[in-house]
Amino acid sequence: MDSVEIEKVMVQINDNYLKLKAGYLFPEIGRRVAAFAKANPQAKIIKLGIGDVTEPLPPAVIEAMHKAVDEMASRDTFQGYGPEQGCEWLRGKVAEHDLRPRGCDIAADEIFVSDGSKCDTGNILDILGRDNRIAVADPVYPVYVDTNVMAGNTGEANQRGEYGRLVYLPATAENDFTPDLPGGRVDVVYLCFPNNPTGAVASRETLTKWVDYARDNDTLILFDAAYESFITDPDIPHSIYEIPGAREVAIEFRSFSKSAGFTGTRCAFTVVPKTLTGVTSSGERVELHRLWNRRQSTKFNGVSYIIQRGAEAVYTDAGGKQTRALIDFYMENARIIREALTGMGMTVFGGVNAPYVWLRTPAETSSWDFFDKLLGESHIVGTPGSGFGAAGEGYFRISAFNSRENVEAAMQRITSKLTV
Amino acid sequence: MDSVEIEKVMVQINDNYLKLKAGYLFPEIGRRVAAFAKANPQAKIIKLGIGDVTEPLPPAVIEAMHKAVDEMASRDTFQGYGPEQGCEWLRGKVAEHDLRPRGCDIAADEIFVSDGSKCDTGNILDILGRDNRIAVADPVYPVYVDTNVMAGNTGEANQRGEYGRLVYLPATAENDFTPDLPGGRVDVVYLCFPNNPTGAVASRETLTKWVDYARDNDTLILFDAAYESFITDPDIPHSIYEIPGAREVAIEFRSFSKSAGFTGTRCAFTVVPKTLTGVTSSGERVELHRLWNRRQSTKFNGVSYIIQRGAEAVYTDAGGKQTRALIDFYMENARIIREALTGMGMTVFGGVNAPYVWLRTPAETSSWDFFDKLLGESHIVGTPGSGFGAAGEGYFRISAFNSRENVEAAMQRITSKLTV
Repeated sequence: MDSVEIEKVMVQINDNYLKLKAGYLFPEIGRRVAAFAKANPQAKIIKLGIGDVTEPLPPAVIEAMHKAVDEMASRDTFQGYGPEQGCEWLRGKVAEHDLRPRGCDIAADEIFVSDGSKCDTGNILDILGRDNRIAVADPVYPVYVDTNVMAGNTGEANQRGEYGRLVYLPATAENDFTPDLPGGRVDVVYLCFPNNPTGAVASRETLTKWVDYARDNDTLILFDAAYESFITDPDIPHSIYEIPGAREVAIEFRSFSKSAGFTGTRCAFTVVPKTLTGVTSSGERVELHRLWNRRQSTKFNGVSYIIQRGAEAVYTDAGGKQTRALIDFYMENARIIREALTGMGMTVFGGVNAPYVWLRTPAETSSWDFFDKLLGESHIVGTPGSGFGAAGEGYFRISAFNSRENVEAAMQRITSKLTV
Repeated sequence: MDSVEIEKVMVQINDNYLKLKAGYLFPEIGRRVAAFAKANPQAKIIKLGIGDVTEPLPPAVIEAMHKAVDEMASRDTFQGYGPEQGCEWLRGKVAEHDLRPRGCDIAADEIFVSDGSKCDTGNILDILGRDNRIAVADPVYPVYVDTNVMAGNTGEANQRGEYGRLVYLPATAENDFTPDLPGGRVDVVYLCFPNNPTGAVASRETLTKWVDYARDNDTLILFDAAYESFITDPDIPHSIYEIPGAREVAIEFRSFSKSAGFTGTRCAFTVVPKTLTGVTSSGERVELHRLWNRRQSTKFNGVSYIIQRGAEAVYTDAGGKQTRALIDFYMENARIIREALTGMGMTVFGGVNAPYVWLRTPAETSSWDFFDKLLGESHIVGTPGSGFGAAGEGYFRISAFNSRENVEAAMQRITSKLTV
């Protein structure tokens, strides 16, 4: 081949990545904390930033994983490739324990086990077209936005960090942190309840309003219920499928990460009902279940057998009780945080049906300034509200995921040291 | 909102999925085997189709995973979110044991731990543009092709199952199953050595030819080395980075699946050197490492801590020896298969530096006909060569991944029963 004749071009990258603003939120926090720790090696930093669990896995999960590891040690019980969709026994337990008791008409084969809701909420865009009009709440879990930017579903960001073509639905104290319906039609809307970052929940009426909107408009709801197990109010739905008609309009994402302490263990699941459809560019209706099944079969190889056995143990009697105790433990942390901050005159939201407390930063203090102040004065790491979107400016997230000792020490430091 | 005013459209799907032909190869095999088993409940089917391991995990891996499970049971040693890129200790061991001893100049932070090479070879397209000219061998691991179809990098399939815009590089007995350089420039080329499905390997000269081509043409090589540990010939490179200059042109995919028996345990890694670049549509060079790091940080949450500890144990003295013994075991199976088939006059390839034997089907028998015949007459499952691409027609893959007993029984049945 004569290289002189070759047109000198080169492998092209996905330009959309260059539209992404700064780092993903948590790496940026990590950089600031590392810099502070380096400059202040004596400081005992308490992290209430990233929503990472701290308490050990439930004993039933530990026992099940030991057993599964042993199975891998013997030819008779060894497990090779499992189904990409997840093991039948786990999918069945999910349907039986998490969904049907709440009246959700979801079959086991509509449940796809995965290694994380973060992965699934990003990967779901693989099966959707590139011309959809997409709505997100503001503030919002950054992964929804960033993955749409990467997929080419947005324009450039403006000075407020808002991307062109995305429809932002503000969620602030004024609307109880539940966004209003879009002013016009959208093709896809991300909803997250209990909400990360605000800790807000959606009532049955609110969810019904969204399902009705979606049915009227052939809109796809991507419903992130990763925090459903933290709901304490019995009237609040845990699943979008508790709302009649949701099977035709919603995909739901669930996770063992926060409920059972699986952030480092990795297991989640996504519900894609078979009654859910989208259209081709020529207008033909196609089942999203078929597309997601094809996507997962081709680009995923299932979750580790050992980990799936661990997740299954959450549904035993003992595992269920231990998981419940874990959740109660973090919710007691949330109560302590709420009371301490309220006691010093701060305005706080969330923390009742969600493991996040969302506070209004003291007047004139930006979210990142409050971050630096809290780190500098109290050696406590939280998450700036503006990191979740423009409407999060002036708010700040405190996570209830830490040991009791650390939560109490953190509140002691804040109430005694922080100048507000 | 007045629904009468709403333009009645709907969420659009990714039309590219509809270009995909039939099912993914292995699900199709699964369907045929299930149908046969149902019609012949007495048949004792032996599966030498999908490349799935059968032998238990190395004892060192088991021990390490038990220890890691115990760490998850105590607050002091509990592990939450790990780095999305993989734990430093595992990345370091990979560089130290797998790459540097072979002269590969790869740093630990150029290694990304993941849950599978199948995932990574598909997901890598996320960071590339949509106008690249892409070459694959034929026959080829179907995931390379299908993920390009899904991403919109191809046109429709023709009658032979070849997709428009893809450049197919035939690999047949005539060129020793090592494809010739493309007739013109391509932006991306997938290379897999030792090859799945043909079992062929690439000499240092062959790989040098490809690296030189890639450097001359600013082509990105996606090098799948998932089977490198099965190489027995000391002159055959295990990594593309053994070739000078490869750091500027190649990404390499590696896996614990086949070497250490991790198909159901899930751990792999991908090497993205920092010296590797692509261009934006305006011609600016961008580091692919930066893009992949961003992709993984946003759309992935790392591999389970427990599983990473298991993978790390492969690099202990005991783990290394046990893993070597596993590989030797399967390669002895490959030898038995080769000898049996050769002894009955069949033409066979591979099986010397790879756990796959690639045979030419008897005259006039198509790959799928041979599949049905082998299943029907000998109750043995293999993989039709045509399932890997048009140039695989007339070939058939037999996997060496099974117990000794099953491999010997299978060869006994074939040599005594099969009418060829």
